[in-house]
Amino acid sequence: MDYALMMSAYESRARASASRRLTQQDLLYESLRRAILDGDIGCGTRLASSRTLAEELDIARNSVLYAYERLVEEGFVTATRHGSIVNDVKATAARPSAQVEPRESAPRSLSRRVRELPPRRAPGSEAVALRPGVPALDAFPLAQWRTALERAMREVEASELGYGDSAGLPALRQAIAQYVRVSRGVRCQPDQVFITDGTQTSLDLCAHFFADEGERVWIENPGYLGARVAMLTAGLSLVPIPVDAAGMAAREEHWRDTPPRLVYLTPSHQYPLGCVLSLERRLALIERARACGAWIIEDDYDSELRHDGPPLPSIQGLADDTPVIYLGTFSKTLFPALRIGFMIVPRQIVTQMETAHRTLVRQGRVAEQRALADFIESGRYARHLRRMRKLYLARRDGLVAAIEKHLAGLMTVSADAGGMHLSVRLDAPVDDVAVSEAARAHGLALSPLSAYCLRGLAESGTAPYNGFLLGYAEATPEASDALMQTLAEVVKAMIEATVECEV
Amino acid sequence: MDYALMMSAYESRARASASRRLTQQDLLYESLRRAILDGDIGCGTRLASSRTLAEELDIARNSVLYAYERLVEEGFVTATRHGSIVNDVKATAARPSAQVEPRESAPRSLSRRVRELPPRRAPGSEAVALRPGVPALDAFPLAQWRTALERAMREVEASELGYGDSAGLPALRQAIAQYVRVSRGVRCQPDQVFITDGTQTSLDLCAHFFADEGERVWIENPGYLGARVAMLTAGLSLVPIPVDAAGMAAREEHWRDTPPRLVYLTPSHQYPLGCVLSLERRLALIERARACGAWIIEDDYDSELRHDGPPLPSIQGLADDTPVIYLGTFSKTLFPALRIGFMIVPRQIVTQMETAHRTLVRQGRVAEQRALADFIESGRYARHLRRMRKLYLARRDGLVAAIEKHLAGLMTVSADAGGMHLSVRLDAPVDDVAVSEAARAHGLALSPLSAYCLRGLAESGTAPYNGFLLGYAEATPEASDALMQTLAEVVKAMIEATVECEV
Repeated sequence: MDYALMMSAYESRARASASRRLTQQDLLYESLRRAILDGDIGCGTRLASSRTLAEELDIARNSVLYAYERLVEEGFVTATRHGSIVNDVKATAARPSAQVEPRESAPRSLSRRVRELPPRRAPGSEAVALRPGVPALDAFPLAQWRTALERAMREVEASELGYGDSAGLPALRQAIAQYVRVSRGVRCQPDQVFITDGTQTSLDLCAHFFADEGERVWIENPGYLGARVAMLTAGLSLVPIPVDAAGMAAREEHWRDTPPRLVYLTPSHQYPLGCVLSLERRLALIERARACGAWIIEDDYDSELRHDGPPLPSIQGLADDTPVIYLGTFSKTLFPALRIGFMIVPRQIVTQMETAHRTLVRQGRVAEQRALADFIESGRYARHLRRMRKLYLARRDGLVAAIEKHLAGLMTVSADAGGMHLSVRLDAPVDDVAVSEAARAHGLALSPLSAYCLRGLAESGTAPYNGFLLGYAEATPEASDALMQTLAEVVKAMIEATVECEV
Repeated sequence: MDYALMMSAYESRARASASRRLTQQDLLYESLRRAILDGDIGCGTRLASSRTLAEELDIARNSVLYAYERLVEEGFVTATRHGSIVNDVKATAARPSAQVEPRESAPRSLSRRVRELPPRRAPGSEAVALRPGVPALDAFPLAQWRTALERAMREVEASELGYGDSAGLPALRQAIAQYVRVSRGVRCQPDQVFITDGTQTSLDLCAHFFADEGERVWIENPGYLGARVAMLTAGLSLVPIPVDAAGMAAREEHWRDTPPRLVYLTPSHQYPLGCVLSLERRLALIERARACGAWIIEDDYDSELRHDGPPLPSIQGLADDTPVIYLGTFSKTLFPALRIGFMIVPRQIVTQMETAHRTLVRQGRVAEQRALADFIESGRYARHLRRMRKLYLARRDGLVAAIEKHLAGLMTVSADAGGMHLSVRLDAPVDDVAVSEAARAHGLALSPLSAYCLRGLAESGTAPYNGFLLGYAEATPEASDALMQTLAEVVKAMIEATVECEV
C-alpha cells in the first residue's frame, strides 16, 4: 500500500481541478477512482487507513471516510477486516469470451441514412444578406411580445409545469383553427389542430405517421430541402415531380407508374421557384389522391404574406374531408426562434392522431402557447401581418428595381408573387453555385436554385435550373441596390474570366 | 344568371358566419366560392353585374368588385366582355384518365408502423396520485424561474429571433458540460453537448442518427416505453434483454447471436425496476460495445436525485472516448413543460453530429436557454436539487412506511434507491393491471410493472413482473398514508372476489 501513490494522485488531481472548486472529499474520491480505473492503483492494493491518509493529506478524516465509502458502494473497493482492498475492475471489464467473434469493428460514424442526407450548410456569420426564410427580425414588435409572454408567465400555475396535452394548448388550437378558417379557407375544428415546434417537426411526424418504410412520396423538383430530409429520414422513397409555371406538374405516367402514398407540396408559393399551383391542378390533385388513397401534405409556409391580392385558398378547404394535412408555422410571420408550428389533420383520423401524437410527442411550454393564442385573438397578429405585408412589398419592389438597374441582361426575375423571397434566373453563361461561392466573400448569402434539384433532373429532359432564391425580408431598398451592384460586379468578373479562359 | 341564388348563398353564409366578423367583401367572396365548388352555381353561369348585386345585397359596390376579382384571380371565374362567367371547376377536377387503375383505395388510417406502437394512455384528469415521472411541481421555485426568464427576455436582441445554432445556445452547452463533469463524472467539452427539447426527442435522434433500418437495438425488459417507441418508429429491431438486481443482464448468447448496433439503458436507476447497473457490468459493457462497434445510449434521467449516497458515476465517464451517448433532461429536476434536454456525444463524431443535427433540427428559444444557463451557473439549480432531494427522501420514507403499515403481506418494496419513484411487487394473487384499473376509480394512477414488459417475456422463462411503479414526488407522507390505505382496500376486495369466484 503506497501512500505516495495515493497522495500524488490526489495532488495532481487537486491541481487539475483547482478551478472546479470540489470539496476535499469529492476530490479525494475522484482522484482515487481515476487512479484505480487507469490502473495506477492496482487490483489487490490495500488503501491507506483513513486516519493515516487524513493526516498525510492534511484533510478531515470524515472526508476520507466519505470517499472510501463511496468507492465501496460503487464497486471499486471492497471493505474487509484487513482494510479497503481495490477490486479488479480491469479484469472485470476485459472478459470477452473466446467463443465470441468480435464483429468487424464498425466505423465510428453516424448511420448511413443520416450520412446520405443532403447536408444543410452551416450559417456563415459573415454572409447573411438575402438569405431566404428569415423574416425582418428588427421589425418584429419584440416589446409587445415580451409583454404578452410575461403576462402569460404570471398566469402559469404549478400544475401546468407538467407534461401538457400533447396536441397542444386548447386555447391555441382554437385560435389557430379560427384564424385559418377565415384567412386560408381551411375547414377545421380545433381538435384537428396539432401544435408542433415548427415545420421541420411537422414534416418528421407526417413522414412517419402517414407512410411506411419504402412507400413513395412525391416531392416538387426543385423543392424544399427540409421536406426531402424528413422523408428520407423516415425511409420513404422519393419521386421527384417537375414544376412548371402552374406548380407541381404531375403527368399521367406519374399516377400510373409511381402512385404516391404522400404528396408533399408548397402550393401557395412554390419553394423555391415561387409559382402558384393552379386551381385546376388543386382540384385534380384532391380527386386523384382520393382515388389512390394518398395523403397530400400542404405546406402553407408563407401564404399570409401575399403582395398581389389575396392568396389562393388552401387545397385543404376546397372540399369537405379532403385527404390533406395542412402545415402552418409562425416562423415566417412572427419569428423562427419561437419554435411553434402546427398541422391540421382530416376529421376522420383525429382520434388516431391523438393516440399516436401522445405516444411520440411530449408537449409543454404553456406560457409561450398562451401568449401566442392571446396575440392572435387580440388582433395583434393580424396587425403585425398587415405591417409586414407593406414592408415586404416595398422591399420586394426595391430588390426588383435593383436587379433591373444593375443586372439587366444578366439576370431575370422569374417569380415574385409574395412571401419574403423571389426567384431569379441567370441569363449569363455562369454557374449559380460558382456565383454564390464568389458572392459569399462579399457578404451575400445567395441560394443557388440548382441546389434545390434532385440529381437526375437534367437527365429527365427538364432544363436545369440556374439562378437564385433571394430573400428580401431583411433588405431595405437601399441595401438591395448596393447588393445588386456588388452581385453585378461578381457576375461580370466571372464572365470575363470565362471568356479569357476560352481565349 | 340568378340573383336569387347568389343572394341566398350570401345570406345563408352571412348567418353561418355571424360570429366570425368577416368583412362584407370576404363574406361575399366566400359564399360565391363555396356555391361554385358545391355546384350550386353551375359552370357557365354569368354572375350578376357588380352594380346590380351591390344594390340587391345592399353592400358597397367595391366589395362586390373585390370579391369578383379574387374569384377571377383564383380561377373560379373568367372575366369576359359579356361579364363574369363561372368556370368548370368540377369537370377540371374529375378528369381521371381511363387508363389509370385506381389503386385499391387505402384505408384512411395512419401508417402501420405508428398503429403498431404501444400506445401511451391518455392522462386521466381524475387519477393523478402516484403517477411516475412528474416532479413536485408545487415545490418548484416558479417565481425565481420567472425572474430568470424575464431577465433573459430583456436581453434578447432582434438578431436572436432567427434560427439559432442548431446544437443549442453556447452558454447553455457550456453550463451543462461543466455541471455533468462534476456531478456525473462525464468527460466532455461543450461542443459535445447538443440541446434537444427533451429525452423523447433525444431518443428519436439517437435511433435515426446511430442506427439504420433493421439494425438491432438492445433494450431493457422491462424497460422504458418511450425508448421502445422511438426505436420502433426508426425501424430498428428490438432485442429485449432481461434485468436483474444488478441491472441489464446480457448473457454471452446475446452478444454472440444478436450483437447490437445500439444498447439503450437506464443504468443509474433502472426504469421501471429501480436497480443500479453494477460497476462490473458497466466496464464490461464498454469493452464489449467497443469490440462489436455498438453505441451505448445512457439515459441518466434522474440520477441527480439519489437518496442513499451519491450515484454511481456515468458509464460515459468511466474511460476516455467511451462509445456512449449520454442523455440528460431537466424535466425531472426542474419541470417537464420546460422542454429542454440534451445529448452528449463522443468527441470523434462531433463534426458529423453538427452537420446532421443542423440538417434535421431547427433550434431557437434563446431566452429559455439563456435563463437555464444562468440558473445552473448561479448555483440556483444545485440549490433547488438539494431541496428536492430532501423533500423526495421524506416522501419516499413516507410512502415506504405507508406500504408497510397498510399492505404488509400484500406488497413488498423491491427497489427504492432514488429518483422520484419506487418499485413494488404484488405478493397477493391479483393481477397488477386489474388492480390499477380498479384503483383508478379512487384517484390512484398506478403504473403496472407488467405493462413495461415486451410480450414474450413469460415464454423466455423469466418470471413475469407483477407490481407497480409508484411515483411519490407529489405525495406528502400524509397523502401516501391515505392512498395506501385505499389501495389496501382495493387489493383486499379483489382477493375476496377471486376467492368467492373460486368457491
